[in-house]
Amino acid sequence: MTRANSQDRDLRERAAAVIPGGMYGHQSTRLLPDDYPQFFSRAKGARLWDADGNEMLDFMCAYGPNLMGYADDAIDAAYIDRMRQGDTMTGPTGLIVELAERFTAMVTHADWAIFCKNGGDATQMALMIARAHTGRKTVILAKGAYHGAAPWCATRPVGVIREDKAHQLFCDYNDIASLEAAVAAAGDDLAAIFAAPMKHDAFTDQALPDPAYARRARELCDAAGALLLVDDVRAGLRIARDCSWSVVGVQPDLSSWGKCFANGHPISALLGSNTAKRAAAQIFTTGSFWYQAAPMAAALTTLDRVRNTDYLEHIEGLGTRLRDGLAERAAASGLGLRQTGPVTMPLFLFDDDPDLRKGFFWSSEMLRRGVYVHPWHNMFLCAAMTTADIDQALDAAEASLKALKGQVGSLGPVAKMSFLTA
Amino acid sequence: MTRANSQDRDLRERAAAVIPGGMYGHQSTRLLPDDYPQFFSRAKGARLWDADGNEMLDFMCAYGPNLMGYADDAIDAAYIDRMRQGDTMTGPTGLIVELAERFTAMVTHADWAIFCKNGGDATQMALMIARAHTGRKTVILAKGAYHGAAPWCATRPVGVIREDKAHQLFCDYNDIASLEAAVAAAGDDLAAIFAAPMKHDAFTDQALPDPAYARRARELCDAAGALLLVDDVRAGLRIARDCSWSVVGVQPDLSSWGKCFANGHPISALLGSNTAKRAAAQIFTTGSFWYQAAPMAAALTTLDRVRNTDYLEHIEGLGTRLRDGLAERAAASGLGLRQTGPVTMPLFLFDDDPDLRKGFFWSSEMLRRGVYVHPWHNMFLCAAMTTADIDQALDAAEASLKALKGQVGSLGPVAKMSFLTA
Repeated sequence: MTRANSQDRDLRERAAAVIPGGMYGHQSTRLLPDDYPQFFSRAKGARLWDADGNEMLDFMCAYGPNLMGYADDAIDAAYIDRMRQGDTMTGPTGLIVELAERFTAMVTHADWAIFCKNGGDATQMALMIARAHTGRKTVILAKGAYHGAAPWCATRPVGVIREDKAHQLFCDYNDIASLEAAVAAAGDDLAAIFAAPMKHDAFTDQALPDPAYARRARELCDAAGALLLVDDVRAGLRIARDCSWSVVGVQPDLSSWGKCFANGHPISALLGSNTAKRAAAQIFTTGSFWYQAAPMAAALTTLDRVRNTDYLEHIEGLGTRLRDGLAERAAASGLGLRQTGPVTMPLFLFDDDPDLRKGFFWSSEMLRRGVYVHPWHNMFLCAAMTTADIDQALDAAEASLKALKGQVGSLGPVAKMSFLTA
Repeated sequence: MTRANSQDRDLRERAAAVIPGGMYGHQSTRLLPDDYPQFFSRAKGARLWDADGNEMLDFMCAYGPNLMGYADDAIDAAYIDRMRQGDTMTGPTGLIVELAERFTAMVTHADWAIFCKNGGDATQMALMIARAHTGRKTVILAKGAYHGAAPWCATRPVGVIREDKAHQLFCDYNDIASLEAAVAAAGDDLAAIFAAPMKHDAFTDQALPDPAYARRARELCDAAGALLLVDDVRAGLRIARDCSWSVVGVQPDLSSWGKCFANGHPISALLGSNTAKRAAAQIFTTGSFWYQAAPMAAALTTLDRVRNTDYLEHIEGLGTRLRDGLAERAAASGLGLRQTGPVTMPLFLFDDDPDLRKGFFWSSEMLRRGVYVHPWHNMFLCAAMTTADIDQALDAAEASLKALKGQVGSLGPVAKMSFLTA
């Protein structure tokens, strides 16, 4: 059975003419198996249809934004209702106040909010606020942690100059000694420690935060008068109904949010404690669409859902069912499969698979069976998924493991991933 | 007659608790007359209602995004229809290709497009692309030109470090000698000249581009192998159905767009010529909501309107009627009023008004008469405005000039604007 792909092929050809590289950023399929579709046509609940009409159970959830299900009727109705009254206007509506109140009431450390569009807007603002608050420059980051694509945090060096990354020091995630060494190296210039809520880097196993590491980051910031940021853009609301480090008992001064708190509608946020409020009021920060009312209406409806339903326990239950079921099937197949990260944001990597040839083969087999998984980036569960969906994924996984088992000795290298082994 | 403002007052009080400074960015009323509302409730066509239900004819148009009229039925219907099929998904739809094709067909210099959210995303991407393309670092900017609020172009120094603005040289807008001097100072390191399409800085008279200056910028870039950007985020589609420098016969390599090309729905774009395509494909650039389908549907409908209607001639006609009518009334009043910039994006400043006391008084009088004007930022006309609207504004202007004339000798200083005369 071959998946139809003629629409996708045509669109790729047209895109190559008018979009650099045919597509940009994290939604480019350049580093995915060749049979993965680049273009999609429709989404509803936990399902996605590509440009050729092939239906998939989608474990990427738009790389996070789909928390409650695609095209959720109530959330979209809130958006539409507000849009019809006025959306981007000459000033904000009262919804910005209501959303700031609701969000800060939910997130323990937060006293105030600034709303923006990209997750990176919020994190970059945190950097400015930390520097304004302390009058210092140095920020400590974990090696390999993703904080956005702006020059200061760009993961690829092209177009970036040395000065973009000035006054940055790096530690290893969960490694207290390396964190302490970085703080020592910062001397009296430490403005902030920027923490990922967990290690969710691409291509490698994920890691939950060691509570002792998180506590030590808090202590070191307090001792230095520096600010602690948790960048919850990717993980927010899939680990806690609060900042993700609340589960290890650590409260930051700042947390950045994005992706899913309006269920895919475009809004992000920086939340902060009163410690950082004065500096936050002193920086100039803005954007053409930051005051949009409709995404705030959608966010309020989404946060109601967060507070009043068991969406989190539901996706944790599904994630556990998926993890246990997949572990059992992988063990039965004799193929070593590592499942890492929280069950709501799983990453799957095969043992002894440096250029991901096993991962690519298996993922393509999953796709043929109507399940969209990612071979090297963490995935996301959403509340629209059901036990039956997970069972469909497990059935597909079993058949795909069997197919992989039969071919594993004869798989060729994956040319596009050769940079991993170079 | 006093305008109702109790809702606004209540919201400001709540906002002070949960939003740093009570509000941030360009939509904060901190530097507007005290009676200007901070919060709005509704918008339709050319009209806006504040949180207390006061109706206004709005000459800010959301600081630009409102091009065709607030809550335009057809544009919003395109947004909603696409949203219901899926908006933020695991990949883009074919609309991204269609929009890139349509936009590049309309903009003479453009061969490709990258879509993003903030205007500043596009301009910052241009900086990365220029550095990637040339392998050089220096960018030349016009003093005082606004390109966004990211650290590299921040207008306020708080939270910004010296390295954020490394390798930047400045010229005076429309001053060829100062542009040539900056190019000479860049030596063999010139990556780009970033041009505002016109001088549209706040607090000062606007200026249209001198064609000789624009041509010289093009020549200097060509001679150096550097890239020329026109930052059309603010002025785009209110000067031409093309890049704004097309009216002076100059084609840049790159142009950044935002605000109004989806009539207020959240999307921005960087357009580029094939010269810059390779570098554009090499940088890594992305954002959580950049692939959203619904704003692209709205943009396609807006661009159809741009192509197929006389919206531009209509707002030019209204702008001329406003300019001529206001000049006549100002002359009759004996008050010196300067109207600068294109008629579709006017700025009004009174003569001999260093702390804007005349401007503030007059603007407040206009507001009392139901017309929202800005005392120091350029304004925007939209296609939903009518001759009757302009005549309403002119009647209000005449009465407000009369009121100002009666009070002008006794106006006190405007404390919040004292920084202008410090």
